[in-house]
Amino acid sequence: MIVTLTTDFGLADGYVGAVKGVILSIAPRVSIVDITHDVPPQDIHHAAFVMAQAASFFPPDTVHVAVVDPGVGGSRQGIALARKRQFFVGPDNGIFSSFLDGKAVVHQLSNPDLWLPNPAATFHGRDLFAPVAAHLVTGMPLAECGPAIMEPMRLIEWDVHRQQASFETSVVHVDHFGNCIIALPARRLIELGEGPFLIFPQDRQPIGLHRTYGDVAPGEALALVGSTGLIEIAVRDGSAAKVLDIGRGTQVRILVS
Amino acid sequence: MIVTLTTDFGLADGYVGAVKGVILSIAPRVSIVDITHDVPPQDIHHAAFVMAQAASFFPPDTVHVAVVDPGVGGSRQGIALARKRQFFVGPDNGIFSSFLDGKAVVHQLSNPDLWLPNPAATFHGRDLFAPVAAHLVTGMPLAECGPAIMEPMRLIEWDVHRQQASFETSVVHVDHFGNCIIALPARRLIELGEGPFLIFPQDRQPIGLHRTYGDVAPGEALALVGSTGLIEIAVRDGSAAKVLDIGRGTQVRILVS
Amino acid sequence: MIVTLTTDFGLADGYVGAVKGVILSIAPRVSIVDITHDVPPQDIHHAAFVMAQAASFFPPDTVHVAVVDPGVGGSRQGIALARKRQFFVGPDNGIFSSFLDGKAVVHQLSNPDLWLPNPAATFHGRDLFAPVAAHLVTGMPLAECGPAIMEPMRLIEWDVHRQQASFETSVVHVDHFGNCIIALPARRLIELGEGPFLIFPQDRQPIGLHRTYGDVAPGEALALVGSTGLIEIAVRDGSAAKVLDIGRGTQVRILVS
Repeated sequence: MIVTLTTDFGLADGYVGAVKGVILSIAPRVSIVDITHDVPPQDIHHAAFVMAQAASFFPPDTVHVAVVDPGVGGSRQGIALARKRQFFVGPDNGIFSSFLDGKAVVHQLSNPDLWLPNPAATFHGRDLFAPVAAHLVTGMPLAECGPAIMEPMRLIEWDVHRQQASFETSVVHVDHFGNCIIALPARRLIELGEGPFLIFPQDRQPIGLHRTYGDVAPGEALALVGSTGLIEIAVRDGSAAKVLDIGRGTQVRILVS
Repeated sequence: MIVTLTTDFGLADGYVGAVKGVILSIAPRVSIVDITHDVPPQDIHHAAFVMAQAASFFPPDTVHVAVVDPGVGGSRQGIALARKRQFFVGPDNGIFSSFLDGKAVVHQLSNPDLWLPNPAATFHGRDLFAPVAAHLVTGMPLAECGPAIMEPMRLIEWDVHRQQASFETSVVHVDHFGNCIIALPARRLIELGEGPFLIFPQDRQPIGLHRTYGDVAPGEALALVGSTGLIEIAVRDGSAAKVLDIGRGTQVRILVS
Repeated sequence: MIVTLTTDFGLADGYVGAVKGVILSIAPRVSIVDITHDVPPQDIHHAAFVMAQAASFFPPDTVHVAVVDPGVGGSRQGIALARKRQFFVGPDNGIFSSFLDGKAVVHQLSNPDLWLPNPAATFHGRDLFAPVAAHLVTGMPLAECGPAIMEPMRLIEWDVHRQQASFETSVVHVDHFGNCIIALPARRLIELGEGPFLIFPQDRQPIGLHRTYGDVAPGEALALVGSTGLIEIAVRDGSAAKVLDIGRGTQVRILVS
């Protein structure tokens, strides 16, 4: 029995602790796994990326709670969804976009019997999502959460434009090491040919695609197939974001050299 | 079986890991929950606030360990206390102030049989508090820790001055989002009347009390009833601490508009 | 059943979450303990120090995974080693140096049956070390990992020069509080005599050795026997690294005053 947590709460306050206390009060035998609490405040895109990357490595029946929730207490709903034998609980603001394919079953959170009494207007993570997740992980059917909904919110999909001999796309995530991950899955490179491939971040010097960091000298830029299956721009023993001065949204062109 | 940890150790060293190893060596089946390790170094007030906020959400028999301990190795004692079916273990420096009402039973840590052999003068968290917590969570009676004490240290209580038509108090905590939490419980507002209420942080513009963030435009300041039950000053999609340049200790006046 | 994690992944991405998901998919009942994920990027020395400090506090059969791995995907091997009834899994880059005494048994990771299928060139933490650790903690014999190796990589040992009436050594770690830990074990002080002892960090004022922080005034420098058994330079209620402007590598001389 696993519940994971992905939030922008940071770790300096007691917010994460309170959420865990609520879960363990209902489901004492659950393993709570922190995915991250360091999502930049209100950055739904960052959280959606992290969730997309980590969730699939967990076993069936895992319940993933994500709380990056600038609209808390307003008109946005809470949702719980099931997909590929895992569950996801959080706000209906696009944070679960990558799991919203045709196979996802999404229910609204509208059953107050599952929540803490007198929920705070600003802390649904503790008062709604935590208890709902704890009930789901101990076997409660999804439909108990509330009625099914058909049109959960989705983030706009990443732009990947295929030109005749190149892809045009952008950096969608900068990680802790300063690696800049772009929206292009490595498996699509074959559409351009056999390579070798060059990556052009905006007006910077072109960068070659390599297998691993050791293929270039320390301090040099390279591109490689990241652990997510997407292409990454990196600097050996350094931060590509800092060295190349690029970041989320930087336009990138990929072509055969 | 749950032991929670609240410290100023940070997470870059092995200190937290060593504490967990000690606990798990004595109580292998315990769930260890991090409340926070990011208390600013030596900031007992911050830790006391976080503990007060998070502890009550945990189930009975939870043992809360808090280690913000600038006096370690000196004359301050270690204590273990029981209150409302939970336990608290740490230094006697006021960190547990909010739990020291008339119902708390407090014992000194003076039984070296419970400690690691040859405890370090500078790491009671690992060598005293961790093993004592592990013994308590596995059922050891509190009195085994040492004799009861009557006058544990308390932090000075927050000032909340009721004037004829206003409250005067101050910011007592700034959270990760820059929300500035003031010492006034929302339930006391009724003493002033029906509202609407205005909040004056020092010489800044007055701020209206709202229900949730969405009630003001992005970037605007508001006050609301926080998830702790205290009044908070916030900025929608921003940091009140930064935008308004206020922080812990800022004087605040609350009145009916 | 415990697996600990020590990495430079930070906590803002999903990398740590993915590693935990892999471990829990294979070993659902394991307790995963974070030692730290805040090792400075690529800083093998920092990670080796943290491991050396924390590992011994864990019970027998604990599996420690450490991933600070600038050479990932290159020619460096992965290793698993057994020592004093604990296991260690990670890259063969010196990160486990303090455990590589004559009693350690070291095996290469060369059995792909244990790994995730199609391991990424840049994320052996998730695709090799995590599944190997999960198999070891559930009882798989070490020899299943691959053949034994005789010459695992070691970091250069710390220099501690004994002069006639002094030791010359250096700061080997700066912790979260700014305490500067030097390579001299306190038990060696007796080689110089009975004391009192003076510590000279480079060309700074000499610092006296005391028992605990309270022995000097707030803001003053002192040295003491740290919780690791090594001598530390500290500043009461402050950061020795900042106040004295010293850091890893600073030369230090210790003598009888």
